Amino acid sequence: MTYTKHTPLDFALLGGPPMLDKLLPVGQLYFPSWDRYDAAMRGIFERQYYTNHGPLAQQFEARLADFFQVKHAICVTNGTLGLIMAVKALGLQGRVIVPAMTSIACAQALTWAGVQPVFCDADPDTYQMSLEHVHMLLEREAGICAILGVNLWGGSCDPQALERLAERFGVEVYFDSAHAFACTIAGHPLGRFGRLEVFSFHQSNLLSTTEGGCITTNDDALAARLRNIRSSYGAGPAVEVPLTSNGRFSEAQAAIGLLNLESCAEALSNNRASFEQYQLLLQAIPGIELLTARGVEQTNYQHLVCEIDETLFGMSRDALLAVLKAENIDAQRLYYPGIHRSAPYVDECATALPQTDRLCGRLIQLPIGALASTEKIAQIGAVIAAAQRHAGALATSNKAVL
Amino acid sequence: MTYTKHTPLDFALLGGPPMLDKLLPVGQLYFPSWDRYDAAMRGIFERQYYTNHGPLAQQFEARLADFFQVKHAICVTNGTLGLIMAVKALGLQGRVIVPAMTSIACAQALTWAGVQPVFCDADPDTYQMSLEHVHMLLEREAGICAILGVNLWGGSCDPQALERLAERFGVEVYFDSAHAFACTIAGHPLGRFGRLEVFSFHQSNLLSTTEGGCITTNDDALAARLRNIRSSYGAGPAVEVPLTSNGRFSEAQAAIGLLNLESCAEALSNNRASFEQYQLLLQAIPGIELLTARGVEQTNYQHLVCEIDETLFGMSRDALLAVLKAENIDAQRLYYPGIHRSAPYVDECATALPQTDRLCGRLIQLPIGALASTEKIAQIGAVIAAAQRHAGALATSNKAVL
Repeated sequence: MTYTKHTPLDFALLGGPPMLDKLLPVGQLYFPSWDRYDAAMRGIFERQYYTNHGPLAQQFEARLADFFQVKHAICVTNGTLGLIMAVKALGLQGRVIVPAMTSIACAQALTWAGVQPVFCDADPDTYQMSLEHVHMLLEREAGICAILGVNLWGGSCDPQALERLAERFGVEVYFDSAHAFACTIAGHPLGRFGRLEVFSFHQSNLLSTTEGGCITTNDDALAARLRNIRSSYGAGPAVEVPLTSNGRFSEAQAAIGLLNLESCAEALSNNRASFEQYQLLLQAIPGIELLTARGVEQTNYQHLVCEIDETLFGMSRDALLAVLKAENIDAQRLYYPGIHRSAPYVDECATALPQTDRLCGRLIQLPIGALASTEKIAQIGAVIAAAQRHAGALATSNKAVL
Repeated sequence: MTYTKHTPLDFALLGGPPMLDKLLPVGQLYFPSWDRYDAAMRGIFERQYYTNHGPLAQQFEARLADFFQVKHAICVTNGTLGLIMAVKALGLQGRVIVPAMTSIACAQALTWAGVQPVFCDADPDTYQMSLEHVHMLLEREAGICAILGVNLWGGSCDPQALERLAERFGVEVYFDSAHAFACTIAGHPLGRFGRLEVFSFHQSNLLSTTEGGCITTNDDALAARLRNIRSSYGAGPAVEVPLTSNGRFSEAQAAIGLLNLESCAEALSNNRASFEQYQLLLQAIPGIELLTARGVEQTNYQHLVCEIDETLFGMSRDALLAVLKAENIDAQRLYYPGIHRSAPYVDECATALPQTDRLCGRLIQLPIGALASTEKIAQIGAVIAAAQRHAGALATSNKAVL
């Protein structure tokens, strides 16, 4: 079957029927089969124990530690809370370097925990945080106590290079690896770099527990502090911590996590096939470039990100977004307009971040994951190809519609 | 069947068989039947949508607003995060009065959000926070911006009196109602007092969603801020907030909450019967007094709290705890030694809190809730009665054992 839009009026934006019957979310939404889930939950109900460091949560932590090849995987309510807890566990005070082109949760976590973000720019080649800019900030800015490295979109920010920079300047380094589950460097999965790494198991990631996350570390004392900050009672030896919270992980989250961990290789392989299909479909279209993950040997393909060259494509990234949304394709901007231009950080940012500004205006995320079937990806490719062909007419109409 | 311990050596602490085969948790652990839960979860799997303000979360919020008779019930990951979000939504800066005899989460939430706790003492008659002491603190202490009232153990701290005090001194007032679900004042459930109230749906509360909670308020602008602080995307109109977090509530949490809300009247009625059984069993035993909830018309009986008079009972609260734990009865101390004597607050507390100190050494929580059957409560009563009879011998052996 082939899909296309022959005239501008065939586009849903201009009144035609949408390509998809219902909204296709951007991803990932990998979940266990109902039967496997059902059996796991039945066990929880039989034990009549639903949260607070339960048996499944302990089992999931052990499996994760194996997977990551680290001593400690500490499950938490969600990745944001993991990032907040990390600041207190590391005893950070002062300013922390963090990229401006990432989830605003990275900066907000710093603010909640009482330290101040210093934003670094993106690298135009790798799309990851710029090591050169990190270096420059370490040399020029006062009061830096740590680097929060972010491994973006299945790639890596070169954690080993950041470790070297951190050591040279005598600051801490830790990582947000929300996007990096199952990505590898030197034959091993990410999870072992810096003082700790924080993963997210939100439904939009390859491994999901609905909401959830974990912190990985090889440092026993740090792990004990993290477990005590996670909850004021109940897991592991009591050690003195500056503050406790509720970052507890429920048995239901653990049940889903255990099942999804078993099938994550399959999910990854499905993602790879989808990525390759997109590659074939998009390479023929002028002005749209599919990003490949940099700084890793294996990626998880969980973010399908493209850069739009408005001149070549014939319409802006935002105009294409409007076209896709009307067709029930939940494409997304990525971190627009950048954290450094978002509340509450706008006024604090003295530094210009030209690459972040440029990329935040050009990047688009397309659906990939459990629900993005071969057929749906073919339909998305057809819409984008047709949008490019009819770009002039659509861009004009778009201005009228928007 | 009757249960007793005829001699000191019958006690598990001294080598006898424990009264219960396995540990009876302190409560509440009310959960829906497997069949009802199973059907609800099947729907989530069919929709393939697991979190981020999903359809069940929206339905649960609407039902809660009806239940509480308020305009907004905003579900959050857990009650602690609700308390943290509340500080930012209210724009508090400075010092906040909070009781020292409550969950340390109340104070920790203030610290995470950047305000400072000022601890108030307990009222020896109501066991709630002392209104007199709050009054005194408002008169004497500088920089107070708010009162965080805590409705403890199915009773209330007299929210209307605190509202009057807050108005008189020009400070904000809001409430931790983690223990107060389904408790009523003037014919209506708690949930409508102060600027907002925060509830917890942890498994230890009458209404549970495993982990979870909600914030109730009649203030539209405050509700919009809370929804934006809960997540940097996705629910309701975007308004400017000082900070966002991840307080999102999953569909699985909502599914359990909806079912438990339907059956919470039944759970409450079961609790009432358990409370009355305890009353009969304990009234004949010297030196143990069962607390009744004060400041409400209807309580939820979710905390079964007793005060131990060491002289009359013949052994200390802690010695009784050791006896009960050995019998597989998960009795608990309550907030010992008080937040004002716990890290990180020890050094900040200039004020003496004599009632809190006294009560924290004398109070004990006994199991009540879904798993505390009539038979198990009879067994608990028998152990306590026998412990009192053999107090001398047990207390002596206890010192050797501990």
